[in-house]
Amino acid sequence: MRLSQFHLHTSKEVPADAEIVSHKLMLKAGMIRKLAAGLYTWSPLGLRVLRKVERAVREEMNAAGAIELLMPSVQPKELWQETGRWEKFGGQLLKMQDRKEAWYCYGPTHEEVITDFARNELASYKQLPVTFYQIQTKFRDEIRPRFGVMRAREFLMKDAYSFHLTEEDLEREYRNMFDAYCRIFERLGLQYRAVFADTGAIGGNASHEFHVLADSGEDAIAYSSGSEYAANVELASAAAPGPRPDAGETMHRVETPTQKTCEDVAALMGIGLERTVKSVAVVGADADGTPQFVLALVRGDHVVNEIKLSKLPGLGEYRPATETEIAEHLGSEPGFLGPVGPARPVRVIADRNVAAMADFVVGANEAGYHLAGVNWGRDLPEPEVADIRNVVTGDPSPDGQGTLALCRGIEVGHVFQLGRRYAEAMKCTVLDENGKAAVPAMGCYGIGVSRIVAAAIEQNFDDNGIRWPEAMAPWRVAVCLINPKKDPAVAEAAESLYRDLAAAGVDAVLDDRGLRPGAMFADMELIGIPHRVVVSERGLAAGTFEYRARDAAEPENLDRAGVFARFGI
Amino acid sequence: MRLSQFHLHTSKEVPADAEIVSHKLMLKAGMIRKLAAGLYTWSPLGLRVLRKVERAVREEMNAAGAIELLMPSVQPKELWQETGRWEKFGGQLLKMQDRKEAWYCYGPTHEEVITDFARNELASYKQLPVTFYQIQTKFRDEIRPRFGVMRAREFLMKDAYSFHLTEEDLEREYRNMFDAYCRIFERLGLQYRAVFADTGAIGGNASHEFHVLADSGEDAIAYSSGSEYAANVELASAAAPGPRPDAGETMHRVETPTQKTCEDVAALMGIGLERTVKSVAVVGADADGTPQFVLALVRGDHVVNEIKLSKLPGLGEYRPATETEIAEHLGSEPGFLGPVGPARPVRVIADRNVAAMADFVVGANEAGYHLAGVNWGRDLPEPEVADIRNVVTGDPSPDGQGTLALCRGIEVGHVFQLGRRYAEAMKCTVLDENGKAAVPAMGCYGIGVSRIVAAAIEQNFDDNGIRWPEAMAPWRVAVCLINPKKDPAVAEAAESLYRDLAAAGVDAVLDDRGLRPGAMFADMELIGIPHRVVVSERGLAAGTFEYRARDAAEPENLDRAGVFARFGI
Repeated sequence: MRLSQFHLHTSKEVPADAEIVSHKLMLKAGMIRKLAAGLYTWSPLGLRVLRKVERAVREEMNAAGAIELLMPSVQPKELWQETGRWEKFGGQLLKMQDRKEAWYCYGPTHEEVITDFARNELASYKQLPVTFYQIQTKFRDEIRPRFGVMRAREFLMKDAYSFHLTEEDLEREYRNMFDAYCRIFERLGLQYRAVFADTGAIGGNASHEFHVLADSGEDAIAYSSGSEYAANVELASAAAPGPRPDAGETMHRVETPTQKTCEDVAALMGIGLERTVKSVAVVGADADGTPQFVLALVRGDHVVNEIKLSKLPGLGEYRPATETEIAEHLGSEPGFLGPVGPARPVRVIADRNVAAMADFVVGANEAGYHLAGVNWGRDLPEPEVADIRNVVTGDPSPDGQGTLALCRGIEVGHVFQLGRRYAEAMKCTVLDENGKAAVPAMGCYGIGVSRIVAAAIEQNFDDNGIRWPEAMAPWRVAVCLINPKKDPAVAEAAESLYRDLAAAGVDAVLDDRGLRPGAMFADMELIGIPHRVVVSERGLAAGTFEYRARDAAEPENLDRAGVFARFGI
Repeated sequence: MRLSQFHLHTSKEVPADAEIVSHKLMLKAGMIRKLAAGLYTWSPLGLRVLRKVERAVREEMNAAGAIELLMPSVQPKELWQETGRWEKFGGQLLKMQDRKEAWYCYGPTHEEVITDFARNELASYKQLPVTFYQIQTKFRDEIRPRFGVMRAREFLMKDAYSFHLTEEDLEREYRNMFDAYCRIFERLGLQYRAVFADTGAIGGNASHEFHVLADSGEDAIAYSSGSEYAANVELASAAAPGPRPDAGETMHRVETPTQKTCEDVAALMGIGLERTVKSVAVVGADADGTPQFVLALVRGDHVVNEIKLSKLPGLGEYRPATETEIAEHLGSEPGFLGPVGPARPVRVIADRNVAAMADFVVGANEAGYHLAGVNWGRDLPEPEVADIRNVVTGDPSPDGQGTLALCRGIEVGHVFQLGRRYAEAMKCTVLDENGKAAVPAMGCYGIGVSRIVAAAIEQNFDDNGIRWPEAMAPWRVAVCLINPKKDPAVAEAAESLYRDLAAAGVDAVLDDRGLRPGAMFADMELIGIPHRVVVSERGLAAGTFEYRARDAAEPENLDRAGVFARFGI
């Protein structure tokens, strides 16, 4: 491609509503342009990147044996009523009426349509297993579309659906798709993690999210240094601690007149934060639905995990306790709470690490005092024990291999074992080997194709712009021509280098726009081209080209063969 | 591709609502499946064909210098209000409201969006000319969706838009796109014609439709045997006839008691139909809007062209005359009408061929009689003269080169010179060479990608199924394996032939499903594979493969080299 015949439109300004780096850089590079809230036109430059992602996804899906088809984006209400999702899907479902006043939606996903296709197309177990996929435009009417294509309303998605006679076969294909996803993200040159996911409302058995790692990611992820284990921080299990040491101290009151936090108490006493216990007062419900006061205990250096807590009996819809409730049950004010000698008997839930402590420090249920040297079974009853804390860096990995580290990620893929829910609801059956109608088990596998583009930028940028992985760059190398009109020999040398690189299969662009070197280089860095070769009068006289990798500190002068060698030619 | 790992689902039955051949064959071949009215899922087989068309279109558009981008399918009402089309576009526009009750439509076309893109992206004449295109899903809410993907509501379209400083440059690019379209249809192996089109309500200067020729086509096309001239029959000009001969007969009455048509009169008189004149009575309006009785005359072997007639002064909204009106103005009853001696003075419009006749036959305005030997200027006044007839086979081409022939076509492409209408309405300007704001002239260029698939079938089929042109076939060659489980050597030979063909760049499929030969061959013929190679135990023993082109009467036995030679290898 010659840039003089392309439409490149970079900009120094960034609209005020661009909050995150990828959105800002995509606008500055001129990759996208906003049409309306959550609706973006992909410019020629942006589309080149999108197509590279799309192609990598398609080729790996094909290699994994999935079969591509194309379903309509507009879907009839009747199908969504069969699964009950016409109502349940909520406000993200963009609904519309045609000229005959029949209702449709713009598909946010295609479980209903593929299951309808399957119940018509699949008659026998001989046609199973089969995995269909499409790469297609979806619409989700986000309440607050933002972050550019990271959370757009109209977006490009790869969605795959598999059909199986048995759960075992579903699990096999799930692993196959999981592996294909790993190959896709590796091929795109992205740092990523596959993360155990909460299947939430979708149901089914296993589920993993694929996250592109980036400091700006919305999700916090815990991963093992010694295994493939990774999970959303809110779902990662804290490993069971070692056995509880013997008690060594007697319980005694400590005056803490203004120390209301574990940090302040530990500082005052000159002990480690991990020897203190934080008491969090909440209100759940007992078996009859009567409000139940609960004291949840985590170590001073830990944080209560609300999702884990809410999965315990009676805490499904818990709320923080009010000061009145705290005074009523503990006889204390906030800042000095503790499980020892409450005003009334209360339910005490200790995190597993707290249950394994001896000689610990808690609030005394008396303003201005804490208790130290507290021990379970002696100073207070043994508690109800559960994993109710967030994991932290250095925790042992729950699978016993290595320790956990934390990072942030952007969800770009998701694999589910759906099971038979959709097929059952839509009466999709095939005849099994005995000629009996069997409901197939299903898997579904999504990748946010357009979101990957933004996520890759969040992971790969610097002050000068985007730093594309080679596989995603709009072009791998820019041949920059200085002063094209001054010396025809320079223009010819650049043309010839560009043509020969392209002929050798290197995705090259010739910057023949005639810009000043500074402006040209700034553009190439902004749009993230991994390699740059400058063709100038001076270089030509010396028989060299100035080569620079996007990330290199300094350029080098290389002869023609040296340039080609950089591309393995 | 191995068919055992593909999803092929042919059928012997055809749903009753499939009216045309392409719809029937696409359903039988399992290329598409209906989701709802005008909404189709493209099966893996169908998608292979669709993608081949898409690729040919993309590559030729790129080669012609057009630049691909991707605009949203969902478009805000505000843009459509700027051009007035939110109301004017009519019922085909599928409208919807998002969760904030803002109105959008599912784009049936993208003039508004591209003009919005242009007014933001294009600032200077230096960025012109430029042609953008996309290949993207569109929606038109047809009153009566039918004929499968031929007239679907959701469909795949290539739409391109160009921007120019001058009309001359627009005309240059129009020709460039015209030529690219010709290359696309030639490459796809389709017989087509570029046809002068009525620009109708869209406005602008020049416009051509591209039609795939097929007997089942909705449009009748007249084309020249000696030039590129082609036009919709309703728009094709009838060439001016030679000079009028001298009168040779005197006018005389002929008794025609039951002869009410030109055919019957010519038969009775034993003369050629081209010596008779048909009188068609209609009612238009004069300059004041008063109803005006008009007699339109065409040769007995010609047909009045309603579009041409309606373009004459006073006939914009003409209607047929009633019997009462005919009696009042001509003093006659239908069947015996003529321009000679009407009861009242009437406006007579003669087709150019009629005006060039001498000694012709017309109705006598008296039941049971016609007049023969009638001559202009002698027996009745010289008439108003205009081209008001449909052209017929054998007419001289209006461009003076060759004669016209008629055929039928399916519109699959359209190129327009839009001019400045959209840019003006949307205040899109660029600075010209003098630094003054100039409204760019626009062209727009559409191709119905999904429609081409159906149109190609209408042109290429037989009793056994589809006869794809090589460039559109799902696969070019099927390697058919007989009895795969019986003899491993046969399976190996088929595998090896398939692999080597594929490695040589031939798009091959291995039919390893283990069907009986008859069922396998029927499938391959139905889905239209152009070449078939059968690998059997008997052939292998003789060192040959049975090769057959889809259209060949008989198969041939070829050795391995002979098979490869058929693919130019």
